[in-house]
Amino acid sequence: MEFSREELGDIYAFAVELGKQAGQMLLDAAKLRMGDGSKEEKEHVQKENAVDLVTETDEDVEAFIKGRILEKYPSHKFVGEESYSKGTRRDYLIDDSPTWCVDPLDGTVNYIHLFPMFCVSIGFSHNSKPLIGVIHAPFLNQLFSSCSGRGAWLNETQPLPLIRNPIPPMPEKAPSGCIFSCEWGKDRRDDPNGNMHRKIESFVNMAAEIGGRQGRGGMVHGIRSLGSATLDLAYVAMGSLDIWWEGGCWEWDVAAGIAILQESGGLITTANPPEECATAPIEEVRIGSRLYLAIRPAGPSATETGRAGQERTVREVWRRVRNLDYSRPGA
Amino acid sequence: MEFSREELGDIYAFAVELGKQAGQMLLDAAKLRMGDGSKEEKEHVQKENAVDLVTETDEDVEAFIKGRILEKYPSHKFVGEESYSKGTRRDYLIDDSPTWCVDPLDGTVNYIHLFPMFCVSIGFSHNSKPLIGVIHAPFLNQLFSSCSGRGAWLNETQPLPLIRNPIPPMPEKAPSGCIFSCEWGKDRRDDPNGNMHRKIESFVNMAAEIGGRQGRGGMVHGIRSLGSATLDLAYVAMGSLDIWWEGGCWEWDVAAGIAILQESGGLITTANPPEECATAPIEEVRIGSRLYLAIRPAGPSATETGRAGQERTVREVWRRVRNLDYSRPGA
Repeated sequence: MEFSREELGDIYAFAVELGKQAGQMLLDAAKLRMGDGSKEEKEHVQKENAVDLVTETDEDVEAFIKGRILEKYPSHKFVGEESYSKGTRRDYLIDDSPTWCVDPLDGTVNYIHLFPMFCVSIGFSHNSKPLIGVIHAPFLNQLFSSCSGRGAWLNETQPLPLIRNPIPPMPEKAPSGCIFSCEWGKDRRDDPNGNMHRKIESFVNMAAEIGGRQGRGGMVHGIRSLGSATLDLAYVAMGSLDIWWEGGCWEWDVAAGIAILQESGGLITTANPPEECATAPIEEVRIGSRLYLAIRPAGPSATETGRAGQERTVREVWRRVRNLDYSRPGA
Repeated sequence: MEFSREELGDIYAFAVELGKQAGQMLLDAAKLRMGDGSKEEKEHVQKENAVDLVTETDEDVEAFIKGRILEKYPSHKFVGEESYSKGTRRDYLIDDSPTWCVDPLDGTVNYIHLFPMFCVSIGFSHNSKPLIGVIHAPFLNQLFSSCSGRGAWLNETQPLPLIRNPIPPMPEKAPSGCIFSCEWGKDRRDDPNGNMHRKIESFVNMAAEIGGRQGRGGMVHGIRSLGSATLDLAYVAMGSLDIWWEGGCWEWDVAAGIAILQESGGLITTANPPEECATAPIEEVRIGSRLYLAIRPAGPSATETGRAGQERTVREVWRRVRNLDYSRPGA
């Protein structure tokens, strides 16, 4: 089965509307915690702690989205955090069926603290290929969306990437000149072989002066950590972050972001460097791999195509990072 | 000389208006680079590289703000990056005069890449005390403002901190439970005693599991790096970031943020731990010290006042960080 352009357009319009409503639910629940609600609401809020309230919102928003999708498209598959926890077969969640992959709340720690970098993420794929992505960060008034063949957009009117007349090539000495986005994650074991130390070594290689770190210094223009994998991907699609490198996310964190990034012209592959990182083929991302390296959309320079510049950047990152240790139960 | 409440209110209204206009100038110049401008504008943009264009915008916005201030308040002093570079006496820029301390563009690297975390920062102080702060991040539609005695605000209507019924106490085991905000900075020397390595060691101590790092592991809830000292401070005032620790900024990066943070109930002192960090007095920040540690507004718990919780957090941070090496020429 294939979707016609018209059918896909209908699904896209539905997904955008759903993203807007779900984002509004997140913002409404946040405002309640700010103390803008009614007297009864305030009492409800004061009875529980922030983490419980956020879990409740997370579940409410997922139930809302899932209900709306199964009502409108009863034959489609729905994948979310809950599906994963309850599933028996954990290696692949996204197969060739028409599948919705949803994170009702990405950036949960940010949301608990009311730091604005949180969002809802709604991805739709078919034949294992991400086709539609909607990311709504309601506190930032930012709605990112894309549909295969129809472009990627900020707030439905501004095409992505933002700078496009022309789209800048990757810097000649990338990662120098690039903004590098990364997250510290939840694995904080103080073990030289644990993920925290693997990440830190990689971050420091990317940051250090050229010539430093035994020749691995990348002297990136800036390092950013936002606390939301989904928004990291959205900002790479925007062209605002040049490189995002991360391990440990799940399908629902990245499905919509990958759709938007690919539609904008970005590249996404694996975080872990292959053995021959200077020459190995740059493989298409596997959505469920938990290991991601994304490069922003890039135009051609006088000497190379945009794709060649992206691939050169991938190899320069691989040369500076350690393998991360994230796997899947059952995989 | 003292300002009456009415006089200060007039200066505040003027500063807010100025912040709105200057932020709009930043956004207009950004949109030009996105390719939304006219044909002539596009040609102008394509002729120059992004960094030159940003320098031009930076200078234009500073000239606009300086001109408006000196026209309206010819007896006031104006301090900006330019004043510093041209000045002979570099140890103190803010004295007891009524002084405007302005950064036309904070988050310059973000602005070059069109990552939304950039802003204009306008501070007004008298008798060396920050009285008024205005921070406008136009791509985020966020205007932070405060005036001594009149509260701190987001978009002029939402009081800061956001969560205020009641304002949450600092977590019992802070820095655990806190979002820790920090920046990698420009000093990237790969020298074990350089600022990059001093920072990294400190970041890792704050991040690592409890019991790790020879008992220094702080297991913070999250680590964020936004690339704008000014917005870091604004988000601490909002209560969204719990702790900000940084060295190397200048007066114009922090003057407005300190005003807003203090008016919201936050605490700000020095980044560098004193010798007896468990008992040393927690000194008031010196605006020009280049070393800052900010703690969000905090309410009382059952066992301590809000201020006691903040001071406890300051000491827990000091216990985990290294001294940073930033000084002033002439100081």
